[in-house]
Amino acid sequence: MTGVSSDLEIARAARIRPIEDIAAAAGVNAAALEQYGRYKAKIDPARLDAPPPHGKLVLVSAMSPTPAGEGKSTTTVGLADSLARAGHNVMIALREPSLGPVLGMKGGATGGGYSQVLPMDEINLHFTGDFHAITSANNALMALVDNHIYQGNALNIDPRRVTFKRVLDMNDRALREVVIGLGGPAQGVPRQDGFDITVASEIMAVFCLATDLADLRERLGRITFGYTYERVPVTVADLGVQGALALLLKEAVKPNLVQTIAGTPALVHGGPFANIAHGCNSLIATQTARRLADIVVTEAGFGADLGAEKFMDIKARIGGLAPSAVVVVATVRALKMQGGVAKDQLTRPDVSALEAGVENLRRHVHNVEKFGVTPVVAINRFATDTAEELDWLLAWCAAEGVPAAVADVWGRGGGGDGGDELAGLVARALEAPNKFRHLYALELSVEDKIRTIAQEIYGADGVDFSVPALKRLADIERNGWAGLPVCMAKTQYSFTDDATRLGAPKGFTIHVRDLLPKTGAGFIVALTGAVMTMPGLPAVPAALRMDVDPDGNPVGLT
Amino acid sequence: MTGVSSDLEIARAARIRPIEDIAAAAGVNAAALEQYGRYKAKIDPARLDAPPPHGKLVLVSAMSPTPAGEGKSTTTVGLADSLARAGHNVMIALREPSLGPVLGMKGGATGGGYSQVLPMDEINLHFTGDFHAITSANNALMALVDNHIYQGNALNIDPRRVTFKRVLDMNDRALREVVIGLGGPAQGVPRQDGFDITVASEIMAVFCLATDLADLRERLGRITFGYTYERVPVTVADLGVQGALALLLKEAVKPNLVQTIAGTPALVHGGPFANIAHGCNSLIATQTARRLADIVVTEAGFGADLGAEKFMDIKARIGGLAPSAVVVVATVRALKMQGGVAKDQLTRPDVSALEAGVENLRRHVHNVEKFGVTPVVAINRFATDTAEELDWLLAWCAAEGVPAAVADVWGRGGGGDGGDELAGLVARALEAPNKFRHLYALELSVEDKIRTIAQEIYGADGVDFSVPALKRLADIERNGWAGLPVCMAKTQYSFTDDATRLGAPKGFTIHVRDLLPKTGAGFIVALTGAVMTMPGLPAVPAALRMDVDPDGNPVGLT
Repeated sequence: MTGVSSDLEIARAARIRPIEDIAAAAGVNAAALEQYGRYKAKIDPARLDAPPPHGKLVLVSAMSPTPAGEGKSTTTVGLADSLARAGHNVMIALREPSLGPVLGMKGGATGGGYSQVLPMDEINLHFTGDFHAITSANNALMALVDNHIYQGNALNIDPRRVTFKRVLDMNDRALREVVIGLGGPAQGVPRQDGFDITVASEIMAVFCLATDLADLRERLGRITFGYTYERVPVTVADLGVQGALALLLKEAVKPNLVQTIAGTPALVHGGPFANIAHGCNSLIATQTARRLADIVVTEAGFGADLGAEKFMDIKARIGGLAPSAVVVVATVRALKMQGGVAKDQLTRPDVSALEAGVENLRRHVHNVEKFGVTPVVAINRFATDTAEELDWLLAWCAAEGVPAAVADVWGRGGGGDGGDELAGLVARALEAPNKFRHLYALELSVEDKIRTIAQEIYGADGVDFSVPALKRLADIERNGWAGLPVCMAKTQYSFTDDATRLGAPKGFTIHVRDLLPKTGAGFIVALTGAVMTMPGLPAVPAALRMDVDPDGNPVGLT
Repeated sequence: MTGVSSDLEIARAARIRPIEDIAAAAGVNAAALEQYGRYKAKIDPARLDAPPPHGKLVLVSAMSPTPAGEGKSTTTVGLADSLARAGHNVMIALREPSLGPVLGMKGGATGGGYSQVLPMDEINLHFTGDFHAITSANNALMALVDNHIYQGNALNIDPRRVTFKRVLDMNDRALREVVIGLGGPAQGVPRQDGFDITVASEIMAVFCLATDLADLRERLGRITFGYTYERVPVTVADLGVQGALALLLKEAVKPNLVQTIAGTPALVHGGPFANIAHGCNSLIATQTARRLADIVVTEAGFGADLGAEKFMDIKARIGGLAPSAVVVVATVRALKMQGGVAKDQLTRPDVSALEAGVENLRRHVHNVEKFGVTPVVAINRFATDTAEELDWLLAWCAAEGVPAAVADVWGRGGGGDGGDELAGLVARALEAPNKFRHLYALELSVEDKIRTIAQEIYGADGVDFSVPALKRLADIERNGWAGLPVCMAKTQYSFTDDATRLGAPKGFTIHVRDLLPKTGAGFIVALTGAVMTMPGLPAVPAALRMDVDPDGNPVGLT
């Protein structure tokens, strides 16, 4: 994946079409289109003259992530471009990137090489302001909560038990743990607090699981932001501000239309964390795409153990979705890392390391089958992959009975011939009858839901609950939340809760240290290990390279 | 100013035209127009096919504000509508409202009655995201500063002397005084800190005084965010992130085009605090309007002692502007309050109170003449004003030699006949030769600049500097900042620094307690009395009334 051109250079050299042309080709009527500059638009689903959702859903997931990079967004974009090139009516549904990591080190999240969504610079910066609206709604809620406490605290909120935090779309380590309300009686009520990054806000999760603005308003009202001195949950509806929060989000909930380099329409909308939330673009965007296209290609965060499982058991359940195919992205490099090769040795051909590492892929692809869905393996090609390695991997997939293709959507683009074979396999998978099922029933206890995921998906022997977690389980039962699905917060690097155990470990236990009820989003987060909800900046932040040139063009976005 | 319809109801009942029609009528070429939804657009000055700035500038200011309300924005909008109705080629330049006060108690800031800019709901909420971009740039800077300290502090920044704060566009009392960086060595370096509201950010002031994106980048680099352990100022350029901050602002600096109820084009762009900053819309918007129109009507914050003085001595100086007329808005109610009448007695006809209160207006109108500009008094009519009161006031203005007219732009609209007479007076004032001058030369010492403003504009006997202020004056001299203009932070309710002294007090001293160098914006703030840079929410915030109706329309914005 070396190249003379950066993603930004390729993006800027691409021919970008006016967004109204993309919209017209996608079947969006003019009354439903609201332009944001020349190349971005919002679609108002309420004004959209299109049939109900009917498009078949392809979820792009991956083997366990490694620092080597898998290229999930790139494959999502490239696959859709290849399907479009084969004559299918296709649309993409992707998450919006978070600004914090863009300024830190991650660079953009709009695909790469010749499989990108455009305009990459604007999507990676403020885009259409959705995340800012979510930040505002989140922080309006918290200003209203602290003001309520200050103005007499009629709801009897315990300031030590406010569980909701303020957020910024920023990597800002210094805000992780703070004390607010200092300065004396006129300045507020002091309490220990902290800031999360916006994508970790429950309002982001609510935003992405709502079916429409009215449902968003209801879900906002159900958010539990803290507890009274008697430990009774206090909700946004108790405070009476779900209307104001919905008002702050009324434009943001309309999905954003952009285009790929190849001109395929893409809805880029919402982007919750994949650990303490479910890690998928908004349900509204997915359903809007399914009204407009016959095939919708979407993605979920992290590997299939987390992203795909949450997609199936949370998003698909709430939205009544039934995915028709799951693409599992794998790379030779990442498989070698799973097989024990160090990062600086990945360019050395090493089929034996592939053999060891492929156990990770094996568990992921068979997990997909547990949801009644056929997996398709996409081998995302890197320049350093040898023919021998690629052939070995294709042969392994064939022996395993899993359709697989090498894709070069980064270098050749899905608009070129880089994803033709993969698109063919996916199109064939879509012809099979849909046998989708959830992994667990909501009627199971929260413990049993967690156990089912840990044993069936992770391959664990069992689950161990900490004393605080057991206490929290009792609270959940008492508060009537036990019927919610579970959202696992586990390291993405391992099937276990230990990030260093690669491959496909056996004989391990999952340790649940705490549970966080997210009653607005509608799931119970199970925390295994430390979860970082406010990232920090590195020693040399990407921001130091960023600039505008004399013509006002962006510099240094990668 | 009572009426059966709320501002939101009037706004929603108004016929709003597609923004591209407004743009075309205003002479904006298509290449310079970037739509944001149907009724908002950004104008890219770099692509604007229009002559250099040439339009004559009318500044709308006011007598000292009272809780009775003066209607400065309403008069600005109505006057422009009336000038347009009289056949003039006119454009408005206004500040963007801040979201925090909208959720608090102020309601919107887009005019009122039949003199509003549309779409009022979107302008009052997120608009085109400019304030969010400024919030992001501000907070990116602070994340980078705290990260720099955490990562080894090569610049030797004293964490106790970081003067720049994070911001939110929110009224959030609990964030006024905080401690950040808690949690141990991995979470940052603890320091005492606080949040301001976004409109108080120096980045907002920089944004509004920049001539273009390149100048914005330079000014950002000149911001002093703190001091080293040796008390040497540290700037954004020292940190090397002016490019990243400019990148975050590159779209926001393009002025926003909207329309009045009467269809007059309005640029609504930027909105710095009027106490610790200069309180005017962006220079870029003013100059863009002056390229497109023969007459530009704009406003400045608070009364003429603050807003107009800062407009003349800061914005006009930096931008090379020479205002041709200043409208001083007065109301019978506010004059009676200045004359000592309590707020609940204002509806009682009382010419003797008017006589007492008019001294406030007298000082303001003669202050305007000190800038070489002819004042025009706009008597903004309220329903409770009696003919006797209005006649008395008109007669007083005539005797004083000041052109004056009663305007009913709230009730009848400038698009109706509510502002015809006022527009006629303003048009006549524009025909006089321009004799604009600044109040003071930059070569004066900072003390003498402050003394000149206090004596010439406020009517003070002199200025008293606190011991810390004297020390700061020495620092300013040593750091080479003494040539900057002064930005007075004084209560808007009185010519003195005591908010309770109404009318036109004499025999008083202005007390300067501290000075804040704003080296990016390019002025020295002189603090007199307490200045609140993070408002709080009231006991019953406006947010409690806000909602969306089942069709997604806004409810409860006033």
